[in-house]
Amino acid sequence: MDILRGNAVVGQSGGPTAAINATLAGVIRGAGEAREKGIIHTLYGMRNGIEGFLGENLVNLSELFNKESQISKLELTPAAALGSCRKKMKSPEDEPETYKKLLTLFKKYDIRYFFYIGGNDSMDTVLKLSKYAASQDYEMRVIGIPKTIDNDLMVTDHTPGFGSAAKYVAITMQEILRDVSVYTTKAVTLVEVMGRDAGWLTAASVLSGLSDGGSPDLIYLPEVPFDPDAFIASIEEVQKDHPAVLIALSEGIKFPDGRYVGEGLGGRKVDAFGHVALSGAARVLEQLVKEKLGCKVRSIELNLPQRCAGHLASRTDIFESVTVGRAAVQSAINGETGVMITINRADGPYYSVYYGSADISTIANGVKQVPSEYINDKGNGVTDECIEYLAPLIQGEVYPDFENGVPVHIII
Amino acid sequence: MDILRGNAVVGQSGGPTAAINATLAGVIRGAGEAREKGIIHTLYGMRNGIEGFLGENLVNLSELFNKESQISKLELTPAAALGSCRKKMKSPEDEPETYKKLLTLFKKYDIRYFFYIGGNDSMDTVLKLSKYAASQDYEMRVIGIPKTIDNDLMVTDHTPGFGSAAKYVAITMQEILRDVSVYTTKAVTLVEVMGRDAGWLTAASVLSGLSDGGSPDLIYLPEVPFDPDAFIASIEEVQKDHPAVLIALSEGIKFPDGRYVGEGLGGRKVDAFGHVALSGAARVLEQLVKEKLGCKVRSIELNLPQRCAGHLASRTDIFESVTVGRAAVQSAINGETGVMITINRADGPYYSVYYGSADISTIANGVKQVPSEYINDKGNGVTDECIEYLAPLIQGEVYPDFENGVPVHIII
Repeated sequence: MDILRGNAVVGQSGGPTAAINATLAGVIRGAGEAREKGIIHTLYGMRNGIEGFLGENLVNLSELFNKESQISKLELTPAAALGSCRKKMKSPEDEPETYKKLLTLFKKYDIRYFFYIGGNDSMDTVLKLSKYAASQDYEMRVIGIPKTIDNDLMVTDHTPGFGSAAKYVAITMQEILRDVSVYTTKAVTLVEVMGRDAGWLTAASVLSGLSDGGSPDLIYLPEVPFDPDAFIASIEEVQKDHPAVLIALSEGIKFPDGRYVGEGLGGRKVDAFGHVALSGAARVLEQLVKEKLGCKVRSIELNLPQRCAGHLASRTDIFESVTVGRAAVQSAINGETGVMITINRADGPYYSVYYGSADISTIANGVKQVPSEYINDKGNGVTDECIEYLAPLIQGEVYPDFENGVPVHIII
Repeated sequence: MDILRGNAVVGQSGGPTAAINATLAGVIRGAGEAREKGIIHTLYGMRNGIEGFLGENLVNLSELFNKESQISKLELTPAAALGSCRKKMKSPEDEPETYKKLLTLFKKYDIRYFFYIGGNDSMDTVLKLSKYAASQDYEMRVIGIPKTIDNDLMVTDHTPGFGSAAKYVAITMQEILRDVSVYTTKAVTLVEVMGRDAGWLTAASVLSGLSDGGSPDLIYLPEVPFDPDAFIASIEEVQKDHPAVLIALSEGIKFPDGRYVGEGLGGRKVDAFGHVALSGAARVLEQLVKEKLGCKVRSIELNLPQRCAGHLASRTDIFESVTVGRAAVQSAINGETGVMITINRADGPYYSVYYGSADISTIANGVKQVPSEYINDKGNGVTDECIEYLAPLIQGEVYPDFENGVPVHIII
């Protein structure tokens, strides 16, 4: 196979994670190695994903990141240093001008390698671009690199970004458990975790107990239809043992009829302006528990910090996220296109992974849910098998540089 | 002065902080030193504050913490290891049986030193107990040790627990700023910080910029009456410069007429059960911004994690919190009673503090607010003078031991 020489471009898309910049750093490292071999000359970064590329809003990453100290700071900077976008590409038939413009720019900048870090929508973009380039006889390798805190992509064992979010959820839950346990009065604390279609991140709340054994009393995932009566009964059962009940629940839990719990129990709520308000699931259940049990109830939405808490990233996740970035460059140089890099778990007594790639069409638009053997019979907790799967992903700590009491972030 | 010999008891009261156990560890260290000198024989811990003492729910801390490794783990364990209570003591005339019982127990356990770690209510308990013991000719030294994330106690320069909460708020705000800055579309993010009567903790959000210069665009404290029109105008002003607007606000901000913003703008809200719901201030303003500006708006309540995030404690705060615990023991041995330990800031070019004590009656029931010279003219931000006061309090990091990916906590 001939070696394809030229320039490369990388972009980030979709919601931020604590590890998406680690993957960018991996691509920068990989491209740097390829540059030494005379394969990739310049690595460009597109600001705000494909939108920025279309606007020729590019930065020269080969120049910007020519020092190890900058690359390693980037690895521990949360969110997306290049900026992101939520653009969902239509087909070349539906927006021919966009694709024509893209091809012109690929040629103008001699882009032969295109790396796109993102979730499902981004993988769809990768699929469309790789097909389009081939249809135009323009030789370019297009590689998707996964990231999502939701851990719901098909084929890959887990997704970069998930381990760090899971570690944040576990430790925050551990600290909340310490907090709510100080009083002797009955109280219920509901913690809402991100995850609309899959409960992986909520399941990770169980890991709060890995050092001292204290985990949430009850865990509710979107994979199990939510039964309010069973929920109240489970709380009463826990209260027989101790007064402070801690509950983790996914934002995406649904009633058996398919409506989100976050839509509310008894008809729509109307706010001060007359708008229909979609409360969070935890807030809806806060009302339910107050109504049924009359005890003190508090709801906590973990919100954005769970996906951008760089200071509490998982070292395993950061390491793997860097490696998938490097693997993407290698995969492209090896001739692959239209694939997504995957992380595969090796068999054996110790956790270890190897990297591979899979055809994008087997991944895009599927959702990997938490399997039934990871959920207990009552549907209000997770099994030891689930803990075995999750625990390795949050191992190891990162120690970002601090300056004046706060972490140092790289801002491009 | 004769040396008073006997036993000691320590309790924790009020809301958890990341540093209240550091202060407990300081008392344990101080009592250990006093034990070697034959002054304090046994240090008891009361579970759940004064309630636990009344129920003789005591643990022998001298025995439990006889190893350095345990004491240093306790220093980095958040919340209140002895448990807490919210009991507000009435006067001896109003509940004579309670005081009689207390006296009996003081004599039974030969308690000559009584240490109470807490906020305003706890200081009031200290005041009442010290007076009562004196009135009964029972020689006992009663010392209050401050803790509150609100930083609103009188006399002391700042309060143990505040620096750690401030560091958490600053870093979380920095990470949220990274997160919300990735898109190019207009969006407003409202972050609600604890603090009903004083805005110290919300003001600390400005410290997010200490390493890279990025701070919240607007900061609203309870010290300034909240004007909705000026608020909207300020957001529009910021949007002329950049699309993502980040706002920090205290839960306790009030309209000029004295009503909490959290009560809502246009009449009361009614939930699915017909209950009047008191939304948080950020949620109320989320609706207002949507109504007035029509852009994407998100509200985030930092909630419990801001007061119990032990993994992100300020080393300065932890060190000082331990020291006030030791200082309390020394102050009591020196003959003081009915006082609270204070932290005083020394003059000079570098931050340094010295410890003292102040008569409880000058402290209990007062509230120290953010002074006007720390707030900008528009009332939507803080001044450099404020940053100078706050910045030293979040300096230094702690590195708790991790086991299986999560911090090790001491559970008594």
